[in-house]
Amino acid sequence: MAGEFDLIRDYFQGATVPRGDVALGIGDDCALLNVPPGRQLAVSMDTLVCGRHFLPDVDPASLGHKALAVNLSDLAAMGAEPAWVTLGLTLPGADAHWQAWLGAFVGGFAGLAAQHGVQLVGGDTTRGELSITVQVHGFVRPGQALRRDGAHEGDLVYVSGQLGDAGLALLAQQGLYVGLGSLERLQVRLDRPQPRVALGRSLVGLASAAIDVSDGAAADLGHICSASGCGAQVYLERLPMSDTVADYVRETGDWSVPLSSGDDYELVFTVPEGRQGELETAAAAWDVPLTWIGLMRKGAGVEVQLPDGLTTDTVSGGYDHFNN
Amino acid sequence: MAGEFDLIRDYFQGATVPRGDVALGIGDDCALLNVPPGRQLAVSMDTLVCGRHFLPDVDPASLGHKALAVNLSDLAAMGAEPAWVTLGLTLPGADAHWQAWLGAFVGGFAGLAAQHGVQLVGGDTTRGELSITVQVHGFVRPGQALRRDGAHEGDLVYVSGQLGDAGLALLAQQGLYVGLGSLERLQVRLDRPQPRVALGRSLVGLASAAIDVSDGAAADLGHICSASGCGAQVYLERLPMSDTVADYVRETGDWSVPLSSGDDYELVFTVPEGRQGELETAAAAWDVPLTWIGLMRKGAGVEVQLPDGLTTDTVSGGYDHFNN
Repeated sequence: MAGEFDLIRDYFQGATVPRGDVALGIGDDCALLNVPPGRQLAVSMDTLVCGRHFLPDVDPASLGHKALAVNLSDLAAMGAEPAWVTLGLTLPGADAHWQAWLGAFVGGFAGLAAQHGVQLVGGDTTRGELSITVQVHGFVRPGQALRRDGAHEGDLVYVSGQLGDAGLALLAQQGLYVGLGSLERLQVRLDRPQPRVALGRSLVGLASAAIDVSDGAAADLGHICSASGCGAQVYLERLPMSDTVADYVRETGDWSVPLSSGDDYELVFTVPEGRQGELETAAAAWDVPLTWIGLMRKGAGVEVQLPDGLTTDTVSGGYDHFNN
Repeated sequence: MAGEFDLIRDYFQGATVPRGDVALGIGDDCALLNVPPGRQLAVSMDTLVCGRHFLPDVDPASLGHKALAVNLSDLAAMGAEPAWVTLGLTLPGADAHWQAWLGAFVGGFAGLAAQHGVQLVGGDTTRGELSITVQVHGFVRPGQALRRDGAHEGDLVYVSGQLGDAGLALLAQQGLYVGLGSLERLQVRLDRPQPRVALGRSLVGLASAAIDVSDGAAADLGHICSASGCGAQVYLERLPMSDTVADYVRETGDWSVPLSSGDDYELVFTVPEGRQGELETAAAAWDVPLTWIGLMRKGAGVEVQLPDGLTTDTVSGGYDHFNN
C-alpha cells in the first residue's frame, strides 16, 4: 500500500504545467509564489463532499475537472486571471482501486488546469470520507475586481450562456425522461462545467457587479442585490435556455430549473445602462453568448416577471447546504 | 436551523482582527489581498479529519487552535511572516449542538490568529463528516525562505523546545499512567501546540534548512536529508525532553516517544558549523531554548547513536496517514 508521500509524489508532482512565478512548488512545508507587481491576489476555497455535492459513483475524471472548475468560476466572477491551485484531498483508501481513481481524478483536474495555465503548488492528502477542498489563486489589478456590491439602480442584468442544463441533468438522474442525445449533453454540462474565465476578465471595466451561478440564477442575483443594497427584476421569458430546458419548461411550467437550480457556473452580472452598447459590441467577438434578462431597481430582493406580465413575490431560493 | 450563509456570517465574519492588506475579506466570490512589494507569498494547506487526526469528543476550542497551529507551524518552518488564513469546514449538522461547537471552535481558532496577527479572509462551510482544511498565507523575502534542501555535510542539527510531550499525551490517552499534574501539561502540549513562528523568522539568514516536527523528529530530519542529498547522525542522549518524558524513557527504554512521535510542532533545523557561535549568541535572547542534537554527514537517512555509543540502523519511521 502506498504511503501518503508516495501518493503525493506519484500523482500530483508534475501533474500540471510549471509556471515561471512559482519559486517552490510541492514538496516543502510551503509553496513559494511570486505575485506580479501591481496585482492583487484573489483567492477562493470550495469544498465538495461525497454524497452531498457528488455521488459516490461519479466518474473521477469528471470530478477532478469539476472540483477545479467550481473554483475557477469564482475567479471568473471576480474578473481575475488564474495562476495557482492547492488541493486538500481526503480519500477512503490507497489500494489499487483508489490509486486508479486518483489517477483519473488527477487527469481531469490537470486537464482543466492546463486549459487555464494553472499550476498545482501544494495541498494535503488524508484518509477519511471522500472529500475535496480546492483553493485557487489569481491576479487582478487593484480596484478592478468585479465585486458583488457594485450594482446600482438602473443597471442592466445579463447572464452568460444558458441556464438550467445542469439542473435538468440532476432531474434526469432522478428519473425524469429526456432523450438520450440530450441526456449526454446535459450530463456534460453538469459534470464538466466550463468556468467563464475569459468572459470575466473581459468584463473588467465594463460590468458594475458580477457573481457566478452556483446557487441558482435568482439566488445569486439576490446576493448581488444584498451586497449592492438594491433589488432586481428578472423577465422569465428572457432567460436563455437550451431547447431541452425550454421544452421541459413549456411542458411542465416549472421555471425553477433555469431560475433556481445551481451548478450552471455561468456568470450573472450588471452593466450600467450607458455601457450597454459598448458591452454588446465587445461581446459580439466573445465565444460565449450574453443575454439581457432584467434590471436593477430600488428595493431589495429579486422579483420575477412571468411571461403573462404578472410578477411573483421576491425569490430567495437557491441551494443552501444546510437547509437542503 | 441556520443556513450556510448565516453560519458564515455569524461565526466567521469579524472573528479575526482586520488587516490593512486585505482589500476584500469574507463575503464575495474571492478575497482580494495585497502582498507587500518585495515579498514572496508562502502558502500551506493541511486537513484534519475526525477519527484520524482528532477524536470526536475533542474540545472544539482546542481543535480550532490546533487546526490553525499546525498550519502556522509550516509558515514557521519556512521563516515566513503569517498574514491570512482560509478555512474549509465540514460539519455534521447545524443544530444547537453544532452551533455551540462552532462558537467554541471559532474562539480557539481566532484566539491563536490574534496572537499572530492573522486574518480569516475566506473559506467554505459544507455538511458531512467533521473535517477541517486550513490554508495559511505568509510573506518571505525572495531567496530567504528556510527550505528543506539547503543542508550540507558538516552542518549542525538543532531542535527547538522539547520533544515527546505530545506523543506521551497520546500514550496517556490510551491508558499509560502519568501523574495528574504531568497529564494536564502534556495534554496542553498535544492540544494547543505553539507554532514557532518567531523562531522561524529569527532563523532566516542563519539556518541552512528547516522543517517542523509533525511526523516525528527522526522522520522530519529524514525529509531534510532526502531533500538536501545527505544523511544525518542524531545523538539520542542529547534529545531535549521534559522530566516526564525523560522519566518515561528511563523506565521503558522506549526512545520512540521523543524520536518518532509527531505533533510536537517544534522546529528541526541545520546551521553551518561556522555560524554556531552566532546562532547561540542570538538564541540566548529568544524565548524558546535550542538544543544541538546531531550532525549532517555524507550518505542518506538518519542514523541514531544510542547513549552507549552503539548506532541503530537508519530510521525511516514517523507518522504516515496511509500506513498507520
